[in-house]
Amino acid sequence: MTFLEQLKHATHASRSVLCVGLDPEPAKFPVHLQSQPDAIYAFCAQIVDATHDLVCAFKPQIAYFAAHRAEAQLEQLIAHIRRVAPAVPVILDAKRGDIGSTAEQYAIEAFERYGADAVTLSPFMGFDSIEPYVKRHGKGAFLLCRTSNPGGDDWQTRRLADVDGQPRLFEHLAHLAQGPWNLNGQLGLVVGATYPDEIARVRDIAPALPLLIPGVGAQGGDAATTLKAGLRKQGDQISGPIIVNSSRAILYASQRPTFAEDARQAALQAHRALSI
Amino acid sequence: MTFLEQLKHATHASRSVLCVGLDPEPAKFPVHLQSQPDAIYAFCAQIVDATHDLVCAFKPQIAYFAAHRAEAQLEQLIAHIRRVAPAVPVILDAKRGDIGSTAEQYAIEAFERYGADAVTLSPFMGFDSIEPYVKRHGKGAFLLCRTSNPGGDDWQTRRLADVDGQPRLFEHLAHLAQGPWNLNGQLGLVVGATYPDEIARVRDIAPALPLLIPGVGAQGGDAATTLKAGLRKQGDQISGPIIVNSSRAILYASQRPTFAEDARQAALQAHRALSI
Repeated sequence: MTFLEQLKHATHASRSVLCVGLDPEPAKFPVHLQSQPDAIYAFCAQIVDATHDLVCAFKPQIAYFAAHRAEAQLEQLIAHIRRVAPAVPVILDAKRGDIGSTAEQYAIEAFERYGADAVTLSPFMGFDSIEPYVKRHGKGAFLLCRTSNPGGDDWQTRRLADVDGQPRLFEHLAHLAQGPWNLNGQLGLVVGATYPDEIARVRDIAPALPLLIPGVGAQGGDAATTLKAGLRKQGDQISGPIIVNSSRAILYASQRPTFAEDARQAALQAHRALSI
Repeated sequence: MTFLEQLKHATHASRSVLCVGLDPEPAKFPVHLQSQPDAIYAFCAQIVDATHDLVCAFKPQIAYFAAHRAEAQLEQLIAHIRRVAPAVPVILDAKRGDIGSTAEQYAIEAFERYGADAVTLSPFMGFDSIEPYVKRHGKGAFLLCRTSNPGGDDWQTRRLADVDGQPRLFEHLAHLAQGPWNLNGQLGLVVGATYPDEIARVRDIAPALPLLIPGVGAQGGDAATTLKAGLRKQGDQISGPIIVNSSRAILYASQRPTFAEDARQAALQAHRALSI
């Protein structure tokens, strides 16, 4: 099954567009977990157990594992997701951006080593930095497009003088991802929830693409506004899917021994706001 | 000692701007190494032993380790460089690009876990994706600016309509890195050797910054042209340093049992072309 098919099924089964981001920070774990040698795995696995019926995807962020020499725990975690929630796709948030044989190595890392179904990528080096990923049929690749941080304005909203109509950079990127770059229908875009007008703009330009939308919850984006901007239905016409990520508000709902149940309560709240 | 001081000393000691890129591809190793469980470490360590007196830096590319579950071998390799060539700085080529606490995790990975002296970064997410690295005093951070691949034209050479003078994106980035973004004097730029006119342009805009220049050798860039474009002396005035990377032409000079001696011969040739 392709990533897009998995996503469709998991969205239907969970009746929501909620994605739980797995960004483990040991200092925020309950005290009883902190001393365990595999605390990162143990924490994330319990979050997965508590939330997997509520989500359309899980999104582990690789930096949080790499900083702690916990690549093996990330492998274990993804294997755990496969066991308890085989229908839920895994998006590896890695924002890789390199070319040629180096990009090929990163594709091996994401899709073979970790067995992810999709990956996030930085498009700064252009199309040939994307190509090695879209050669992997059925795998998804989400390109950073309009990110939710203030520095997103440094480049992403700049107007390009030498492109027809002087689109903003993120608009031109959405155009390329919807059309000429999307050789095998695998591309999606990352668009921050903090800019709902720009989600709507990206959706205008790229009606069919899946959008991965971080920034709801702790970062201040609003769920209802996000849904309205990103997901459209007109008669039989339905836009590409959206995936709305929440990490900290769910993972760190509490630091009590009952953190997993508390995370479920937070996820239920997000699930209600992101029901479809 | 800061990265810049290390670089200055190692450049002086080796009398060259040659950097050897460590991009291990097991299929290209000599047959006798391929079956070793730590082949990646063993191969790279022999390259280090054979070339360390000829270089101003080593640049391991992390993707080649990550694809093979070889993070521990990368740690071992950097420890080996510290033993045999303690004066040679290590640039971790990772092209990370993320924000806030995620960028903080990547900084921990590069500077604490691996103990790198400098790192490469993608600037697509803007200044707040750079800031967590430049908080680490003395460490270097090279921003992708004008890369050597064809896809570099997709964004990097676009003119920005809403910036004074409509500079090309890479020119504006060089301006920011030379000035407002360079809070603690740690930034450098990555500029491909395949575009010598653009190296010269970046040097005009950013006279003081270190430039990391890949693309000499297997990728077709010319050493003499690169030196002329990137390194300038006018009387007592000297530009920022340059670091010219060669990977494949040295690593895979031969696949014979004598590969390390063959790599040294290739490095000697590059060293002559990149002497200062």
